Amino acid sequence: MSDDRRIQVAVCGPGDATQAEETAAERTGQLLAKRGCVLICGGLGGVMAAACRGAKTGGGTTIGILPGSDHTAANPWVDHAICTGFGQARNAVVAATAEAVIAVGGGFGTLSEIALALRLRRPVIVLGGWSATLDTSEGREMIALLGGNMEHVTSPDEAVEAALRAIQPK
Amino acid sequence: MSDDRRIQVAVCGPGDATQAEETAAERTGQLLAKRGCVLICGGLGGVMAAACRGAKTGGGTTIGILPGSDHTAANPWVDHAICTGFGQARNAVVAATAEAVIAVGGGFGTLSEIALALRLRRPVIVLGGWSATLDTSEGREMIALLGGNMEHVTSPDEAVEAALRAIQPK
Amino acid sequence: MSDDRRIQVAVCGPGDATQAEETAAERTGQLLAKRGCVLICGGLGGVMAAACRGAKTGGGTTIGILPGSDHTAANPWVDHAICTGFGQARNAVVAATAEAVIAVGGGFGTLSEIALALRLRRPVIVLGGWSATLDTSEGREMIALLGGNMEHVTSPDEAVEAALRAIQPK
Amino acid sequence: MSDDRRIQVAVCGPGDATQAEETAAERTGQLLAKRGCVLICGGLGGVMAAACRGAKTGGGTTIGILPGSDHTAANPWVDHAICTGFGQARNAVVAATAEAVIAVGGGFGTLSEIALALRLRRPVIVLGGWSATLDTSEGREMIALLGGNMEHVTSPDEAVEAALRAIQPK
Repeated sequence: MSDDRRIQVAVCGPGDATQAEETAAERTGQLLAKRGCVLICGGLGGVMAAACRGAKTGGGTTIGILPGSDHTAANPWVDHAICTGFGQARNAVVAATAEAVIAVGGGFGTLSEIALALRLRRPVIVLGGWSATLDTSEGREMIALLGGNMEHVTSPDEAVEAALRAIQPK
Repeated sequence: MSDDRRIQVAVCGPGDATQAEETAAERTGQLLAKRGCVLICGGLGGVMAAACRGAKTGGGTTIGILPGSDHTAANPWVDHAICTGFGQARNAVVAATAEAVIAVGGGFGTLSEIALALRLRRPVIVLGGWSATLDTSEGREMIALLGGNMEHVTSPDEAVEAALRAIQPK
Repeated sequence: MSDDRRIQVAVCGPGDATQAEETAAERTGQLLAKRGCVLICGGLGGVMAAACRGAKTGGGTTIGILPGSDHTAANPWVDHAICTGFGQARNAVVAATAEAVIAVGGGFGTLSEIALALRLRRPVIVLGGWSATLDTSEGREMIALLGGNMEHVTSPDEAVEAALRAIQPK
Repeated sequence: MSDDRRIQVAVCGPGDATQAEETAAERTGQLLAKRGCVLICGGLGGVMAAACRGAKTGGGTTIGILPGSDHTAANPWVDHAICTGFGQARNAVVAATAEAVIAVGGGFGTLSEIALALRLRRPVIVLGGWSATLDTSEGREMIALLGGNMEHVTSPDEAVEAALRAIQPK
């Protein structure tokens, strides 16, 4: 890795997001940039665009891993558009490329990114969305049984701290 | 599609499975074969091998969608080995190739297959495993909100009936 | 692999094919079926549909590895439709799934399948199409230098014999 | 796309390269950086490492699209490591992510990247390697027939000029 290499953290969430989810994603992206991280995301709208917008406001670098082969599908805050052409399977690339994943909001694509990241032993921080489902006693027990590294948080600040703390020991 | 084309149903679950999970998977595979379905799976051991073994006992056809490029990695009950070379992203191919997914047992790979199938609007039948996590009031609410077609069952017989019923309306 | 497991041979070629290419592909598919091979292809029209049609006439089994996620995109002679959702990258799955590749006709997708198959050390038989380009002294020298197993033939009968001969030593 | 978005050009070639190939790749990477382009490559050694080294010397940014899921497999001059986990199918991501592809040296992986790029209508510049094979009258005729945008050059300076000229009209 080059000297210009920085920690890569993904912000995952639906393209069709609520205002609250977009606000949380934007703040998360901005904080990641300020902490020197490169933002990884799926490159499209909603949570992905909000996170990129935040990262650019924070002076950071953004990478959008697109489902298709057309660079222009990237949102206006993507610096580097990676065209996979793999449709939903690009979620596996997002999960693998990130050193930690912050999941903001619901959506089945987001759940697949959570699962694929845990499968690859990447730490996952959940802010809202799937928290209601996965942060039950049954969910916690199952994740623990499988050795997953998952943390539930309630703010973007906590999410970024948790992500960086989880990456550190590596 | 040719006249020899039959309904394709996936049985998903971990390669490292419990005896109870393997027993359930084998019975599910056998029942699918008897109902004239082609068994789709990830092609390796544990739940995947048990489901294939059951399907062959039931006189059926089995397709294993492998993570690697080596045909010989397929379990001994796979008729047609599809070599993707895509690692965990082959889970997206399993989900897309199935007209319905029956998830037997835990594992993060299985959770990703559930999520990817729901994302593609394939019906998902959960038998044990992730049921404890997803069949809570929080889980049911989230899945419903996102328009997912998911059913929880307690036996292989119910699983196969539910899968075929869910495919029918198409 | 199960007792019902048979040798898998791919027939590759463009979806937009000439009459001569389709005739060659159909005859190749039929001969492969008669020799007990499972036909692997990209599942769409042109050379792919012709090869499947031939294989069904010959009493064989056909597998179509589709670029998208919709089973109904498969041509009418596909028995098992594998939905990758990977676009052109599904060519890598066709190449890896085949134990030998027969390339009929031109097209850049076909050239990528030739290259990916050679990369994976699968034997490649070229019938027309890219032969004019690759069967020059420069082309033969380059392929030999890289250790590729490529043979140029002039008829479907020769193609099938060459493919089966190349697989045998494994 | 953000204001920080720059043109993305891939340099493709084997991991096991000759000294002459590495020298050409390094010079090409350096020139691309000086022209303000982001270097895209497969992230490993040989031609890929040489191109990245050149780009960093030229003050540029480098993106390595890896076959596996391990960031540390990237060569020491990669700024952003994209972990696909897709093995050889990552070549399709390299081809799609690039706005133009410069192929330096031989290898079947490189040939697949040339073919996949042409399939996606990306311009391809060939410097050595496959030139001897594709720059024959038969090869030129076939590429032209299929509508491919391919140019053969004899120096890194010509390669970079040709790539930028080919992207411009878009």
